[in-house]
Amino acid sequence: MNDLGGAQAVTWADIDSAARSLAGVAHRTPVMTSRTFDARTGTKAFFKCENFQRMGAFKFRGAYNALSRLTPEEGRKGVVAFSSGNHAQAVALAGQLLGIPAAIVMPADAPEVKVAATKGYGAEVILYDRAAGQDREAFAAGIAAERGATLIPPFDHPHVIAGQGTAAKELLEETGPLDWLFVCCGGAGLLSGCAVAARHLSPGIKVVGVEPAGGDDATRSFRTKTLQRVENPQTIADGARTQSLGRLTFPLVLANVHDFLTVTDEELVEAMRFLWERMKLVVEPTGALATAGVLSGRLDTRGARVGVILSGGNVDLRMAAKLFA
Amino acid sequence: MNDLGGAQAVTWADIDSAARSLAGVAHRTPVMTSRTFDARTGTKAFFKCENFQRMGAFKFRGAYNALSRLTPEEGRKGVVAFSSGNHAQAVALAGQLLGIPAAIVMPADAPEVKVAATKGYGAEVILYDRAAGQDREAFAAGIAAERGATLIPPFDHPHVIAGQGTAAKELLEETGPLDWLFVCCGGAGLLSGCAVAARHLSPGIKVVGVEPAGGDDATRSFRTKTLQRVENPQTIADGARTQSLGRLTFPLVLANVHDFLTVTDEELVEAMRFLWERMKLVVEPTGALATAGVLSGRLDTRGARVGVILSGGNVDLRMAAKLFA
Repeated sequence: MNDLGGAQAVTWADIDSAARSLAGVAHRTPVMTSRTFDARTGTKAFFKCENFQRMGAFKFRGAYNALSRLTPEEGRKGVVAFSSGNHAQAVALAGQLLGIPAAIVMPADAPEVKVAATKGYGAEVILYDRAAGQDREAFAAGIAAERGATLIPPFDHPHVIAGQGTAAKELLEETGPLDWLFVCCGGAGLLSGCAVAARHLSPGIKVVGVEPAGGDDATRSFRTKTLQRVENPQTIADGARTQSLGRLTFPLVLANVHDFLTVTDEELVEAMRFLWERMKLVVEPTGALATAGVLSGRLDTRGARVGVILSGGNVDLRMAAKLFA
Repeated sequence: MNDLGGAQAVTWADIDSAARSLAGVAHRTPVMTSRTFDARTGTKAFFKCENFQRMGAFKFRGAYNALSRLTPEEGRKGVVAFSSGNHAQAVALAGQLLGIPAAIVMPADAPEVKVAATKGYGAEVILYDRAAGQDREAFAAGIAAERGATLIPPFDHPHVIAGQGTAAKELLEETGPLDWLFVCCGGAGLLSGCAVAARHLSPGIKVVGVEPAGGDDATRSFRTKTLQRVENPQTIADGARTQSLGRLTFPLVLANVHDFLTVTDEELVEAMRFLWERMKLVVEPTGALATAGVLSGRLDTRGARVGVILSGGNVDLRMAAKLFA
C-alpha cells in the first residue's frame, strides 16, 4: 500500500480535467483574508471559503466530478453512496443536476434535518440499522450490486480526489505561490487532492494535514508509514471521524504531504469562534481544523504566506450555540 | 425640515468623491447570491456583504470619509463621537488609520467587550452615566467644544452619508441595474446615501427602508411627511434603535426612498437563521433587516432583481445563541 515508487491514483492532469467538468457548475468560492488573524499569527493568510460551496462544503466538487464521468448507461442505473454527512448531500445534488438517480444509505438514527436535506435534493434515502451491527459499506455495496448502480465512495476514488483538488487549484490561481497550505483531514480526499494541485502550482509549498486529536489515525499513519486505524473517534469534528486513510489517498498523502498535526476540540472551538466572530464566517467544526492548526503555532509559519482551506459550513445552530456557551 | 424643493445635503458627486477617499482603505465587500433565497422569494437577489467590511460593518465607510476630510489642524485637535455600537469602532479605526486622536463617548454600562474593542483601535473611551440622566449628545458636544475637537455624528452628516452611499455604488457597479434595493434604517445614514447612489446608477430603482416594528419612527415619518420620534424602541436590532431621522437624512429619504416596511423581531431571527444556516454568513440583527423585509413578502418583488444590504456582522455569539434557541 505504501507504494511510493508506483503510479499515483491522481495527477495534476486529473485535477485540471476535473476543473473543466466543474466550470460553471461548482462555485468558484471566494478567498478571504483577515488582518487580525495575520497579526495574531505573524502570517499572511488566505482562506479558501468552501463553506460557500454548493450544498455548503467542498464535497460537491468530488461528487459532481465523479458523477459527470459516468457513461449514459451507468448514469441511468444510478449511484449509491453511504454517508450521514456532507457527502450525502453532495451526491444527491450532483445526481439532481445531472439527472442521475441517487440513493443515499444513512444510519436510521441520522438527524432528521440531514435526512430531509438529502431528500430535498431529490435523492432516495435508505436507512440502515447501525445498532444491529450492519456494516454500512457492505450494505451500500449490496444495494449497488442489486441495482447495477455505481457506488460513489466518500474519498477513496480518483475522480472524487481530483474534484476536491480543484479547491487548492482555485486558491493558488488567485493568491500565487504560497509557503504553506493547511487542510483538514478525514479520509484525505480533500487533503490528497489539494496536495497534488498545490505542489504542481506552487513547487516547494509545504502541505499540512490537520486532524482532531481524538482521531489521529492519519497522523500516526503518516509518521509510521503504515496504515493506522482509529475506532469510534471522539471529536466534535464529525467530518473527520473517518477510521483510516484509503487505499488511494494514503500513498498520495505519503508522497505529497509535508507534515501533520492534531488539535484539541477546545482549540477547534476557539478557531470557530475566531472565524464566526471576527471573520463573520459560519464554518463547521471540521471546517475549522486547518485554521486551528495555524493558530496552534505548532509549526513555525511566521513571516510566511499561508493557505487555509475552510472545508464547510454545515452546522446546526443549536449545536454551535452549545459549543460557544 | 421637509424641504423637498431645496438643495439636498448629499448628491451623487459627493458619493463618487467618497469612493475615491475610500479606495484601497475600505474593503470592496463581496456580493453573494443564494439559489435557495431566490427560489423562496421568486427574486434574483444580490447581497452586499458589509458584515465583511473593516470593523465588521458599513459604518467604517462614513467615518473614514468624514475624518479624511478634516484639515491637518482639525485632525490634530481630534474627533469626538458618541456611540455604543458600530459607529464607535468605525471612528476609532478611522482615527487610528489617519493618525487622528479619537475620543468615544459610551454609556458607563456599555458591554465590556465593546469598550475593549473601541480601545483596541486606539481610541480614548469616555464613559457617561446614562442613569444620571446626562444627555449623551450634549455631553459629547461639551467635550468636543472643550478640546476644539470635531464632533462626528453617527448619521446626520454629509460626509458620513456620502461614505455610506458607496456601499450601494459598489453593489450596482457589480450587478448592473436592479429593480429594488432593500436597506435597513436606523437614522438613515446608510439608507439615504444608498438611495442617492442607487437612483443615479439605476434610474427607476425602488429603494425600500426596512425598520424593526418596535422602532418604526422612520416609517411613520415617511408616511406622514413629518418627522416622528420613538422613545426607547424595543427590538433586537440594536443598530436601529435611533429615536428619529436627522435634519439631513429626512429630506434625502423623502426625496429618494420609494417605500418603507417594518418587520417583527421574530421575522428578524428567521432572516438571521437563513443567512447563518443557508448562506453561512454571520450577520447581526440590524444587518438582517433588509433580508427580513424581502422575505416578508410585504412588497411584491417576484420576478425582480433585488439588491439587499447586509449592513454588519458584529454580534455576540452567546446573544445569538439565545436568539436561535
